[in-house]
Amino acid sequence: MATQVIVLNGGSSSGKSGIARCLQAVLPEPWLVFGVDGLIQAMPASVQTSAAGIEFAPDGAVVVGPEFRTLEAAWMEGVAATARAGARIIVDDAFLGGAASQQRWQKALGTLQVLWVGVRCASAVAVGREIARGDRVTGMAASQAEAVHQGVAYDLQVDTTHTEALDCARAIAASVL
Amino acid sequence: MATQVIVLNGGSSSGKSGIARCLQAVLPEPWLVFGVDGLIQAMPASVQTSAAGIEFAPDGAVVVGPEFRTLEAAWMEGVAATARAGARIIVDDAFLGGAASQQRWQKALGTLQVLWVGVRCASAVAVGREIARGDRVTGMAASQAEAVHQGVAYDLQVDTTHTEALDCARAIAASVL
Amino acid sequence: MATQVIVLNGGSSSGKSGIARCLQAVLPEPWLVFGVDGLIQAMPASVQTSAAGIEFAPDGAVVVGPEFRTLEAAWMEGVAATARAGARIIVDDAFLGGAASQQRWQKALGTLQVLWVGVRCASAVAVGREIARGDRVTGMAASQAEAVHQGVAYDLQVDTTHTEALDCARAIAASVL
Amino acid sequence: MATQVIVLNGGSSSGKSGIARCLQAVLPEPWLVFGVDGLIQAMPASVQTSAAGIEFAPDGAVVVGPEFRTLEAAWMEGVAATARAGARIIVDDAFLGGAASQQRWQKALGTLQVLWVGVRCASAVAVGREIARGDRVTGMAASQAEAVHQGVAYDLQVDTTHTEALDCARAIAASVL
Repeated sequence: MATQVIVLNGGSSSGKSGIARCLQAVLPEPWLVFGVDGLIQAMPASVQTSAAGIEFAPDGAVVVGPEFRTLEAAWMEGVAATARAGARIIVDDAFLGGAASQQRWQKALGTLQVLWVGVRCASAVAVGREIARGDRVTGMAASQAEAVHQGVAYDLQVDTTHTEALDCARAIAASVL
Repeated sequence: MATQVIVLNGGSSSGKSGIARCLQAVLPEPWLVFGVDGLIQAMPASVQTSAAGIEFAPDGAVVVGPEFRTLEAAWMEGVAATARAGARIIVDDAFLGGAASQQRWQKALGTLQVLWVGVRCASAVAVGREIARGDRVTGMAASQAEAVHQGVAYDLQVDTTHTEALDCARAIAASVL
Repeated sequence: MATQVIVLNGGSSSGKSGIARCLQAVLPEPWLVFGVDGLIQAMPASVQTSAAGIEFAPDGAVVVGPEFRTLEAAWMEGVAATARAGARIIVDDAFLGGAASQQRWQKALGTLQVLWVGVRCASAVAVGREIARGDRVTGMAASQAEAVHQGVAYDLQVDTTHTEALDCARAIAASVL
Repeated sequence: MATQVIVLNGGSSSGKSGIARCLQAVLPEPWLVFGVDGLIQAMPASVQTSAAGIEFAPDGAVVVGPEFRTLEAAWMEGVAATARAGARIIVDDAFLGGAASQQRWQKALGTLQVLWVGVRCASAVAVGREIARGDRVTGMAASQAEAVHQGVAYDLQVDTTHTEALDCARAIAASVL
């Protein structure tokens, strides 16, 4: 059965978004990219900065509260419904909860045909790319590099440490049914 | 029954996005804003510039093709599912197809409790605000100012010509159940 | 003698940037817009968040340190030199230091022909527009609305409270020699 | 004598901007980054899309007209004056005119102490990174990869094909006096 959803999981600055755009370019059919950054932007400014919502600490730690979790769960249902309605979807996420995050996605995606992809990047390299991006808050790359992969099961893993995003995308595309 | 979805419809530069953010600030519960601009960004770059997808002509005309319509229909199902899963949703859209666009949303939203809001702005004023935004392509404000409201039925209309976004948002909030 | 520099001074969310873009559209010759936001983006991320550089407090207060002042002074010299080399310049600034800020610009601009423009906006309206913009940090509009005009001398003042940016720009353009 | 200006020259998607931000992070003193993208944004929308100004063709070609050249020359004088006033400057540019572009900068920078840095990237890799960035107009990376280096003399060259931006920045920083 044809792949309906590609889930890219990796830490901040691991290169997920670049791979997602390359996947859109190399796959013959149109795929939509939905990412957690888009969800955060859809939220009220107050939720983006509160303990009940999501907080970005000066050291790069990201703390997620119950209000964020509730909205995120509904958003996951929406992404799944979009796929069931026929759109091919690439999810660009960072599993801050590791295996628990994957379980939330599995529950939402149900019987959809999913390709689970781990996007790895050596921590020191991701930290350097975070600096090159010029974000004011740094530290996310380091704190997430390993944590987001804890207990997560993949169909495929790519590593951007020494491989370009386009080549990673081609490897993933070869696994899309 | 409580309002589950607020649909804001208005032409380009009519002030919908500002009203949406003010609504997020004045409404006591968290609401998510999803707009057609976000959908376009989720699409492959190729769909954003092709006849089958969506094209932005130099004169400000926007032409939508079958590939765009298919993805849009799936996205509407996803927005509806997000609302059914419990998240309050503000939709920020421009009904390029007028009444036909509204019918597409009605079909997707089904039995959800919807507040339909028309966001008006005098064409000359919207054109001036388009210039103030500094977009390279101009003309959308003029071509959409009236067209997006053709045959559309509303619960409430606001007019940003002489009313600030925050005041429009307060008027809408008073109609949210 | 022809106007060489237009300096727009107003508080955050008073509408300076929109007026600047409208001025570019209505003036027959090309004008370059340089603003303090561009200067801040040109600085290292560390200066953007340090006590010696510039800090944006959660309440909207902006505190500027000696390192910022040094870089700003050099930047002002550069803006003046660009104008002396023949480019027409619109400066988009918020005089956090009031009259002292104007004196810094006067020193840098020297004998250039300058049009000093105050951009006013009623504080309550600017606060509403700040919410409509959706910035995470709010409070700048309120704290700057009056303070940036303290002791500043103008050739012309406009008020965006009830006047569109394009109309303000036309009024300013009529004073450009 | 201490380095006052670092000029980074490389084609689109060669990684200049990332290197510039890393330089800001690794150099002990504050450096300002000014790039041609900032100049383009400072121009009227009309100049950004006209034959007399600058045009971005669908195939990635960039055509620069006399109006752009005049404004650019004044801007170069401004960058030089900012450096003479004491601010350390990193210039992020693509020498579309090759040696002629370098001569324009040499004329403007005069006796300032400049470090000329070539930022190389294998064309195929730059093309892939352009896709990963998701720009709507592609082709600039390919057309500029070699052309911008024609006849240009450097103090130092770095190659981002297999070297991270942070490591390139460290190599450059070691040459800063």
